[in-house]
Amino acid sequence: MSQTQARRRRGGGRAGAAARRGTATLEQMPWKPPTNIDRPVEPLTEEGIAAIHDGAMRILEEIGVQFLNDEALEIFKEAGVQVDGELVRMDRDFVMEMVGKTPSEFTLTPRNPDRAIRIGGNSMVFGNVSSPPNYWDMDLNKKVPGTREHCQNLLKLTQYFNCIHFAGGYPVEPVDLHASIRHLDVLYDKLTLTDKVMHAYSLGKERVEDVMEMVRIAGGLSHAEFDATPHMYTNINSTSPLKHDEPMIDGSLRLVRRGQPVIVSPFTLAGAMAPVTMAGAVAQSLAEALCAIALFQYVRPGTPCAIGTFTSNVDMKSGAPAFGTPEYMRATQMTGQMARFYGLPLRSSGVCAANVPDGQAMWETSNSLWAAVQSGTNMVYHAAGWLEGGLIASPEKFIMDCEVLQMIQRYMDPAVNATGPEEIALDAIREVGNDGHFFGIQHTQDRYATAFYQPFLSDWHNYEAWEAAGGTWTAERANGLFKQIINEFEAPALDEGIREELQAFVARRKEEGGAPTDF
Amino acid sequence: MSQTQARRRRGGGRAGAAARRGTATLEQMPWKPPTNIDRPVEPLTEEGIAAIHDGAMRILEEIGVQFLNDEALEIFKEAGVQVDGELVRMDRDFVMEMVGKTPSEFTLTPRNPDRAIRIGGNSMVFGNVSSPPNYWDMDLNKKVPGTREHCQNLLKLTQYFNCIHFAGGYPVEPVDLHASIRHLDVLYDKLTLTDKVMHAYSLGKERVEDVMEMVRIAGGLSHAEFDATPHMYTNINSTSPLKHDEPMIDGSLRLVRRGQPVIVSPFTLAGAMAPVTMAGAVAQSLAEALCAIALFQYVRPGTPCAIGTFTSNVDMKSGAPAFGTPEYMRATQMTGQMARFYGLPLRSSGVCAANVPDGQAMWETSNSLWAAVQSGTNMVYHAAGWLEGGLIASPEKFIMDCEVLQMIQRYMDPAVNATGPEEIALDAIREVGNDGHFFGIQHTQDRYATAFYQPFLSDWHNYEAWEAAGGTWTAERANGLFKQIINEFEAPALDEGIREELQAFVARRKEEGGAPTDF
Repeated sequence: MSQTQARRRRGGGRAGAAARRGTATLEQMPWKPPTNIDRPVEPLTEEGIAAIHDGAMRILEEIGVQFLNDEALEIFKEAGVQVDGELVRMDRDFVMEMVGKTPSEFTLTPRNPDRAIRIGGNSMVFGNVSSPPNYWDMDLNKKVPGTREHCQNLLKLTQYFNCIHFAGGYPVEPVDLHASIRHLDVLYDKLTLTDKVMHAYSLGKERVEDVMEMVRIAGGLSHAEFDATPHMYTNINSTSPLKHDEPMIDGSLRLVRRGQPVIVSPFTLAGAMAPVTMAGAVAQSLAEALCAIALFQYVRPGTPCAIGTFTSNVDMKSGAPAFGTPEYMRATQMTGQMARFYGLPLRSSGVCAANVPDGQAMWETSNSLWAAVQSGTNMVYHAAGWLEGGLIASPEKFIMDCEVLQMIQRYMDPAVNATGPEEIALDAIREVGNDGHFFGIQHTQDRYATAFYQPFLSDWHNYEAWEAAGGTWTAERANGLFKQIINEFEAPALDEGIREELQAFVARRKEEGGAPTDF
Repeated sequence: MSQTQARRRRGGGRAGAAARRGTATLEQMPWKPPTNIDRPVEPLTEEGIAAIHDGAMRILEEIGVQFLNDEALEIFKEAGVQVDGELVRMDRDFVMEMVGKTPSEFTLTPRNPDRAIRIGGNSMVFGNVSSPPNYWDMDLNKKVPGTREHCQNLLKLTQYFNCIHFAGGYPVEPVDLHASIRHLDVLYDKLTLTDKVMHAYSLGKERVEDVMEMVRIAGGLSHAEFDATPHMYTNINSTSPLKHDEPMIDGSLRLVRRGQPVIVSPFTLAGAMAPVTMAGAVAQSLAEALCAIALFQYVRPGTPCAIGTFTSNVDMKSGAPAFGTPEYMRATQMTGQMARFYGLPLRSSGVCAANVPDGQAMWETSNSLWAAVQSGTNMVYHAAGWLEGGLIASPEKFIMDCEVLQMIQRYMDPAVNATGPEEIALDAIREVGNDGHFFGIQHTQDRYATAFYQPFLSDWHNYEAWEAAGGTWTAERANGLFKQIINEFEAPALDEGIREELQAFVARRKEEGGAPTDF
């Protein structure tokens, strides 16, 4: 029995008790990342795929991408790629050869191996909102800068909900923590309050190395064990149009060299940082992502990577970003087709422009989450808690989104579509005939407990019962659940020795001054 | 120039002015029923389709459906179908032969021929909420019985929004009008406040005949002209399980004989009026619909019909109906596959269980509307305004739903997915290079006005601007728009002679006592 297994076994009782207590607060679905059984929606014809591919390749061949990272430039030179100053132009043969080395699927294993997640193929995993600088909840009823407590509470929701499969970046920026040591405190919180896969920001050598070390310690892993398989990941954005910045590439290379995955997600707002036409915005986004993935594959062939899409459009009246729009949905679906063309796992997001968790928030978020389904997205970032185009994290929105995510999980259960004799149920229909009802019959009794999706937040009472119970709108109900969950939250099991090792690491690195803040 | 054309031409100026005034209130998308360009989602395998078909056929062959309508029973006997009392059992050859006579597409032409709608193929049309007995708006903030004024206001929204293509049943039951004359007053309101396709309730001979006559008068049609092509329709529900009631079949037969379409929409709640298993509920729903369509095709081969799905599930805790659930989505998609198997146009709905226009309302409604898209639904009932499982109509919800419907209309615009050289936009990307932005370039300027979906209700401002403008949640903003639209509403053009003829008809029928109220 390995050390990890032993810890897990010891921890099982406590985690089990927490889960049981969790069940007391609300009945949620079990941990079971969905397998996407739907054929993707394909807005592009074969010619369309070829046209976007050719566009992306010509961007890389003829226009080029700036890499503001000396190490990357040296590597590209070594690879025989054309480098002029910071401008890198690579031909399509090189790009396709390198991108072709990317594994189509990989597994990320966090400190609790039961929470390992598969990225690629038909698997679909959901992560919490990442990186908003601000926080909003119904009690405050205003937008405030994020704090460590807000961040901790959102991490508790991340851990609590079985439909949240990984912890992305900070669910809110705790700006009350000095930037030099913020990553140490938040990673400590993440690693002690959750046992799910997590992420390192590529914001300078020290942060990346500290996070890898803390994830290694939390997993009870030797350096060799850490390097052997993916345990965490980073997500980088290009600086659109057509530029990769120093720290993003630096952090990625550090992870790549230790076998940890990189997700490359250009943020291409059509009409601002990308063409006003969606196919052009997608082509540019692909070019920006593929050249970085080509670099990583050259450095370490077969290193796990995924391509991210964050192509939306601006409001042409105000220049403000829009999310969950028809154009966003189609761009996500198009990118899905292209990701399959390149054989790459896909990341997209759950997003909205709404400022509060209201009707608009939910139709925009629903649009983006269904686009994730329709595009064959493997990894859904920001799947719970996002408001104001990513500038606000909200616990109510988090909980509301989890209801939608659970419905997607249930939607992907093949049992719903089963057509065996027991499901066609001719005998049951015969038994009830032309005058009865199905409530009381055995066929129903045998199945009623699991036949249908059971919501934890939706109120299916009629108006009178709903009104008698207080007449609360969805966001208010979510606020009540939020406080209940935080009150009852119990952290997942963690070996005390490991906790002390993490604490000692954080203390030592703080004494050393943490990380530079000149990013 | 026909009388109708002349009227339309004369009316054009006024209707045009109204449309322009409408534009002043909010910028909405033009009248353009979407063409569904997506391949449907298909949860059923070929074997699954065969199993559900076999189930439906065996229900009709072995169990049978009650027709509480003597005329139908006589017709079935004449057709050689097995009739035992009120129980009708028909073999699959008869069903398939009759159903096979149904046209796969047809056109419904209302009094304004510009508002003709195509039912079938890839066309998709949206109708207002139909038949809630109650009304809710934010000013009342309570559920009240519907009135004629509520009904008129919802009809004004039906007319105002270009994304609402047909007027279904009464958008709310005006219970302040006596049931004997309600249909006369509401039809007068419908025919004068809107110029879109409408519906007759199959609730007894008098109502059906009155509505057909009023639609004929409003269209300026001779009896022969009315009978020659579809101008209106009825929608009937079976009384599940496995029963068709007297007035529904009576009304349908009256329409069928005058060439007007019938939509048959069983209301099969899994676990209550249908098996707890979705495939069984779908099979039963199909059996109930197909036997009625077989009857109508026997009576008038080739008469336009459509199949409706209203298969959802109950909350097994309370027995309350649930809507917009994962099971609802899959049942709708399954029925779509079966409708294509039978060559029938499909009707589904925009539905939710929520009691107020909040987050839950919008994720449930979004789920059902995307299921309509995914199932290849042709006619979306209740697409705007529905709350509380159909027991409440709300103008705020109506307006919120219209934003989602407009997004679906835009989503189906092939321009979003175009991949020509101008859309790949390599020259624009080259022009901007690695440091510029796309706002100011010619490629953007040439397209900015139409490049993206423009919302009328969504607020895309950042939090601070949104807060400064009042910090209103979506439903409040919809309430404001509602009052603006009602204030500025101008009815569509109508020839004064026709208006007088309608008024005289209503007056005469009221003098005669209207319709019996013993239904």
